[in-house]
Parts: sequence; structure tokens; C-alpha cells
Amino acid sequence: MPDLRPILLVIGILLIILAVFMAPPMIADMAVGHPDWQVFLAAGSVTLFAGVSLVLMNRTPALGELTGRQTFLLTTLAWIALAGFAAMPLLFSDLGLGPADALFEAMSGITATGATVIVGLDHAPPGILLWRAILQWLGGIGIIVMGLAILPILRVGGMQLVRAESSDLSEKILPRAAQVASAIGVIYLVFTLLCAALYWWAGMTPFEAAAHAMGTIATGGFSTADASFAAFQSPMIEWIAVVFMIIGALPFVLYIQASNGQITALVRDEQVQWFFGIVTLACLTITLWLVHTDDMPVVLAVRHATFTTVSLITGTGYTSEDYGLWGPFPVALLFFLMCVGGCTGSTTGGIKIFRFTVLNAIARAQIARLIRPHGVVVPTFNGRPVPESAAIAVMAFIFMFALSFSLFAIALSALGLDYLTAMSGALSALANVGPGHGPMIGPTGNFASLPDGAKWLLSFAMLIGRLELFTVLVLFAPSFWRG
Amino acid sequence: MPDLRPILLVIGILLIILAVFMAPPMIADMAVGHPDWQVFLAAGSVTLFAGVSLVLMNRTPALGELTGRQTFLLTTLAWIALAGFAAMPLLFSDLGLGPADALFEAMSGITATGATVIVGLDHAPPGILLWRAILQWLGGIGIIVMGLAILPILRVGGMQLVRAESSDLSEKILPRAAQVASAIGVIYLVFTLLCAALYWWAGMTPFEAAAHAMGTIATGGFSTADASFAAFQSPMIEWIAVVFMIIGALPFVLYIQASNGQITALVRDEQVQWFFGIVTLACLTITLWLVHTDDMPVVLAVRHATFTTVSLITGTGYTSEDYGLWGPFPVALLFFLMCVGGCTGSTTGGIKIFRFTVLNAIARAQIARLIRPHGVVVPTFNGRPVPESAAIAVMAFIFMFALSFSLFAIALSALGLDYLTAMSGALSALANVGPGHGPMIGPTGNFASLPDGAKWLLSFAMLIGRLELFTVLVLFAPSFWRG
Repeated sequence: MPDLRPILLVIGILLIILAVFMAPPMIADMAVGHPDWQVFLAAGSVTLFAGVSLVLMNRTPALGELTGRQTFLLTTLAWIALAGFAAMPLLFSDLGLGPADALFEAMSGITATGATVIVGLDHAPPGILLWRAILQWLGGIGIIVMGLAILPILRVGGMQLVRAESSDLSEKILPRAAQVASAIGVIYLVFTLLCAALYWWAGMTPFEAAAHAMGTIATGGFSTADASFAAFQSPMIEWIAVVFMIIGALPFVLYIQASNGQITALVRDEQVQWFFGIVTLACLTITLWLVHTDDMPVVLAVRHATFTTVSLITGTGYTSEDYGLWGPFPVALLFFLMCVGGCTGSTTGGIKIFRFTVLNAIARAQIARLIRPHGVVVPTFNGRPVPESAAIAVMAFIFMFALSFSLFAIALSALGLDYLTAMSGALSALANVGPGHGPMIGPTGNFASLPDGAKWLLSFAMLIGRLELFTVLVLFAPSFWRG
Repeated sequence: MPDLRPILLVIGILLIILAVFMAPPMIADMAVGHPDWQVFLAAGSVTLFAGVSLVLMNRTPALGELTGRQTFLLTTLAWIALAGFAAMPLLFSDLGLGPADALFEAMSGITATGATVIVGLDHAPPGILLWRAILQWLGGIGIIVMGLAILPILRVGGMQLVRAESSDLSEKILPRAAQVASAIGVIYLVFTLLCAALYWWAGMTPFEAAAHAMGTIATGGFSTADASFAAFQSPMIEWIAVVFMIIGALPFVLYIQASNGQITALVRDEQVQWFFGIVTLACLTITLWLVHTDDMPVVLAVRHATFTTVSLITGTGYTSEDYGLWGPFPVALLFFLMCVGGCTGSTTGGIKIFRFTVLNAIARAQIARLIRPHGVVVPTFNGRPVPESAAIAVMAFIFMFALSFSLFAIALSALGLDYLTAMSGALSALANVGPGHGPMIGPTGNFASLPDGAKWLLSFAMLIGRLELFTVLVLFAPSFWRG
């Protein structure tokens, strides 16, 4: 059993931060005179009390020296604790959500998934809408920090390949995480403000602009309207969303390098090149289909194809159109695109581009080796050779992703969900996308109608998807708890 | 460009064998006075002529010394040539099949897939029914020989891990293949005769018994009735089929060892243990579901669950019941079981058990390494360590399987197929199972109603699935044709 004190200390600090962020929704509800402000006050107080207690009870000098096992435990427990406390305002608000709904919504927020069980967003109190946006926004920066500072050191799923090599960064996990958070935080905030300003300029109310900006940059997907972006019917707003969803899907470390003058860093990165390649190809194909088969005008087709493709591949999940009506080909293509994800060190989920890049290199090396068994072909990523151990880790991740997807889909269907709902729901949750396919959970649907068991399962899928599977799965290995 | 002469010589020999096997269907049609006997005579003559010409034109002393590249080319070209010539009797028979249908049916036969485009099997002439059965039977032994003698030496998809280590076997590919074929051939024939005798005893006509025995041992799935095994409504016949489908799915090399006195070899093999574990678990789960949710009597539930599970996991594709009506859980579970397959060196397709066994060992080693980065855990298969190069090859295979599945599903949906038909059709063809899901190609359906483009695509999927993907894919690498 690892020493729990530093773990509980960090969770305490995170809960204090969470409690502080319950203030804006409280103020918003007070401003419009909605009684839910008391719920936020109570939940904030409880969260603050829990956080402070944990900090006071677990002061330890060993903070900088977390072991790998402690870090695994910390990462998983932190997301569970944050989701649990974040669910409180949702549970006790006057929306009438049960425990399964409240946890689902909170987990969907903090993992920046964007699947919702709330019907009637257009008339929901501002506090709840703001709280959902804030959860995604906090989740987004948490994901970046985890991807840059924690997972590469734990070597989860081949993440050691994308380790940010900087002599300025500490080798100790927590100081490193703090350094990354403060470096990224400014850029993250600037992008959010810029996005909000543009949304406002393009016609949203300031409140809508703020809420959607937080959901966009975090590639989350919570909206303030049941109809998501279709509620605005504004090409300009949709194109702004496209730009900022893409910004949220690129490696944030490259923005730091770019702001330090290395402008070309972004363009030379293999992940970025692949990301734009895949997005462009998918947009073109779907546009052609919409124009050719569905007789959509070209301008409209480009707009809807781009918005939907970018929204699903980055795992944002905003919708501007019911793509379920586009016919079998776009539906099938979008289904598989959901698991692709964006770049590592961004706010996106899914398998992630770098793993496809590495896999492509491995597959080429495999084929070369089959043709010439005595030749030597070493797969490379961003110009550096991929060690066999990293190659195996990348592929083990993909296999575990496929296996988890299968098991979740089978389990959901055992709860009575139909084929399309079970398959797309499992994939969408695991890849932290948001909507699925079909009439129940598709672009015009909502997760509210699912049975509670399915909501618990999907909450778990969102958690392990977000934590790159192995971070959670190691905790189930008996050897983790031994010696 | 590799030297083509030895390749064409071997293909010539195979075509001569194929031509000889066109005699029994011809005799069968003559016996009942059906004019299609002339079609078999003509097709047989053309095939024989082509075979003899190839042999005469390409006599070469270099037969024993095929390079890896020549072997890849030979393997792929041989299956294409056999499917092409085997399609002739189907194309010119009075069934009215077009080129896409005839090639689909022949490819489905020679790859032991068992998907059919022929409607009205119950009234089809005996020649065609026998020809379909023979194609599967020949395909079955071809698959075993390929899996034991050729793919392990080519190191396709990690097959080097299951190389039959015997000092009696030649190191040269073609002599080795011939040795394996003659050693396996006797056992294969004995099992077929035994299965046919039991089917006859249990109530089939001698003709039905022979045709179904060939389809069963080859885990193929062609029937002489549109309703497949549901036409017989006999528990005894179904249980006989279960036993021989399992026999067809185990490594044939173990039967040789068992007949040499090493009876325990079968039981100690990790593949065999895993195969029975997965089959038992799946049968139990589906039985429980059928009893609990569908209120099926226990005896009936055990029978249908076992028959369907074994039929789909081994890639046979015989059906005794419309499992599409069992509800979402069995449908989802059976969907994923389709890609599992049986053991290597058997007649089955799919990903195959040994890859799951190896993956499990790799995943455990991964988790152990995450927990203790400095510990050394080596994954093993059948007691021997798995080299990293083999681990990568196994995982690259699974990735390529998933990628091919995605691309075929997307392409099929682009041809207008609905979600369920496209997804299950792509998986079923790639894993050489046979039926898919849904009203069109499900257990009570038929591939006849698909557009021609889908039939061409699925024929290609059956081919590359059967040849373990990389055997065909290397031919698309420009470096294959260089130097």
C-alpha cells in the first residue's frame, strides 16, 4: 500500500480550487434571483471544508517525490473526487436529477466529454449552465497538464514518445505539473477570452459566449441550448467554433514554443501534419457526399461537413445539423472518426493522432521486414527512432481501447440498448466525444432516457477513456497493491 | 520483379488438382440427368488446359528455393487463380449468376467463408451443391497447410510463434508444404468421413451428409438448404455439427502428435485452453440470457446457444435459429465473437486465439512494467518467451485487422448499405465467418440482394482476411517490386 498522505494532500488542494470555482455560478444565480444559489453555497462550503481538512490532515514533506504507484493512484482518485464533489450542485439543484444523472453530468463535464442528461437547457438557471461550462474548462486544462507532465513520465500507452523535452522542467512529478499548468494556463485563458469575444461579436449574448467559449477550447461540448449550435443558425459562429476546436486539439506545448519565437514548431510537428491531413480528407469526402448524394448546396455542405467532422474528431461533440440524416456513409465515417481524437498534450480524447502516426511507421517497418527479413527498418516519430518498448506500449493501448469498447458495447446491450445506441454510446464515452448515433443519443437526442445502469457504465467509460485506460486499469492488478 | 516461373508452375499444379475435383459434380449432375454436367466438363477442361500449360511452360529446377517475395506472390496469386477458375461452373450454370455473384460464391467457398448469393438451394442441381462443398473442403486443407508451412516462415502477423518445430520437416517452403499436406490430409479425410457417416446416421441423406461434412470440417458454412441447419430441426445433427466444428477449429498438428501417442499435447496447448475457455464462457452467458430474458426452455437454450456460438466463433456460419431475434445482448456479443476465430493451423479465420493469448501476456507485462518500471516481466506463449519483434507483429496484425474492418465498413456504407449490414458484413467477410447481422445478410438472409460493388468488395475482404492481411498487403508496397 503506497503512502496516501501526499495523494490526499493534492486532492485536498484540487477540491479547494473546485470550491472556489463554485462561486461564479452562485453569483450568476443570485443575479437573476434563482434560489439555486443556496445549493452552490452549500456545495461550495462542503467542498471547501473537505479540501481544507484533507490538506491539514496530510501535510507531508515528501511532496516532490511521488512514486509511480502514488501518481497512478493520485490521478485516478483526483478525477473521481472532483467528479463526485462537482456532482453535488447538480444533484441538489431544482433540475430533479438523480445520483446517476448528477454523476454522469459531472463526469461528462470534468472529462470534457459533453454528453448531457439535462433536457430543457434553454430554460435552465444560469448557475447550472455556468457550472457545466466551468467543469469542462477546468477539465480541459487538467487534461493538458496530465498529458504533458504526468502520463509521459508514467509511460502510459507510449506517451513517453511525446515527452516535452525541456531542461527548464523539473523531473519531479508535482513540481513539473505545477510548472506546466502555470505555463499553459495563460495561453489557455487567452484563447478562451478570444473565443468568447468572437462569439459575442458574432451574435451570442455575453453569457452564451462565455459558456460556449469554455466548452469549445476544452473540446468539451456542453451547450446552453438543447439544439447545441443549431440554435444559433449562424455560419460565422460555426466557423469561429471550428477554429477554436482545432486550436484546442493541437499540442499546447507548441503554442509556448511559438510564443517563444519558434513559429515553425507547429508546422513541423508530425502530429499536427497528420491531424490536418485526416481532417481535410474527411471534410472533403463528406462534402462531396453531401453535394453529390444529398443535393446540398456546396457552401452549406462545406460548412456542415467541416463543423461536424472537426467537432467529432476532436471529441467536442457540438452539433449544427442532424448528421444522422445524411445517409449511411457519413454516419459510418463519423463513427470511426470519433475514436481518432486530436494531438497529445491537447484537450482532446480518443486514441490520439500520435498513436496513428507511430502505428503507420510500425506498419511500414513491418511490411519492409516481411519483404526483406534481413534489412533493418526502424520506425521513427518526429525524426526520432521509436524504441520497441514504446511501440508495444502504443499498440497495447489501442488493443485495450478496442477491448474496452467491445466490453462496454456488450454490457450496454445487456442493459437493453439497441445495437446502434450501444455501439456508438460506448465509443463516444470512451473517446470522450459526447453524442452518439441513433434516435436516443444521436445529435438531436440526449442521454436522459437511458437506464441508470447505462449512465453508471458510461460514466466509468468516460473516466477510463480520459485517463488513457492504463492509468485506471493498473489499480485492478493485484501486484499494484503488493509489497 | 521476382522470377515468376516457379510461381506459375505451382499454380499450374493447383489448377490441375482443381480440374480433377470438377469431375464429381459433373458425375452428380449426369446421375440426375441435369444438363449442367456439360458446364462442369467444359470448365474442367479449360482449367486442366490452363494448369497443364502453366506447368509445361514453367518447368524450372529452382522449385525448392522460393524466396520470401516469391512465396508472398505465389500465395496471393494461387488463391485468386483458384477462385477465378472455380467461379466458371457457377457463372455458366443455369442459376443465372453474374460475374460478381459467381466470383463472390467461389471466393466464399475457397476461403471457407460460407456466405452465399444463391437463393433456392433446396432446389438447386446436385452438381452446384457438391461443387460448393468441395470448394470449401479444398479451401480448408489449403488454409491448414498455409498456416503450418508457409505463414510461419514468412513471419506474417507473428505466426513465427506457432511454427511447428519438427526436425522431420524440410526448411524449404514447397517441400515443407507438401509434407504437411500429406501428413494432415489423411486426418482431414478421416474426420470428414466420420462426420459424414454420423450426419447420415442422424437422418441426413447421404448427399446432404457428404456436403455438410465437407462444410463442417472446413468451418465453411455452405449448406444444401436455404434455411441451413434449421432445415433439419434435429438436435442430434446439430450436436454432431458442434463437435466437428470444434475439431475443425483446433490445431491440426496436435492431432498428428496425439495419433503419435502424445495424447496430452492437445490439453496442454495454451491456444486450446483459451479456445475452450472463451467458447464455454460465451455459451453460458448466452444460455443464461435466453433462459432468463427470452424464457426459452433450458435444454433448447443450451442447444441453440452452443450451436450459434461455436458456429460464429469458428467462422463456420451455419445457423439453426434466427439469433437476430434473441435481443440486443446476444447480437452484440456474437458480433464481437465473430472476429475471435479458432486456433492457428486449423481451418478457421479471424484474429485467432493465439493472438489473444499473446496479447493477454503482453498486456500483463505492460501493466507490471507500469507498476514497477525497473522490474523485468517477459510475456510468454506456451511456456516460451515472446520476442519483442513477434509481439509487435501480432499487434500490427490486430491493428491492420481493425483498420481494414473500418475501411471496408465505410466503403460498404458508401455503396448505400445500412449501418448494421455494412458493419457486420465487413467483419463477417474479413473474419471469413459467413452470415452477418440484420434483415439483409443476417442468419435468415442472403448476400444476393447486395449491389455488385459490395460483392466485389466483400470478395476482396474474404481474400485478404483469409491470407492474414499482410500476405496481400505487402504486394501493394512499392519496395516489394524494387530491386
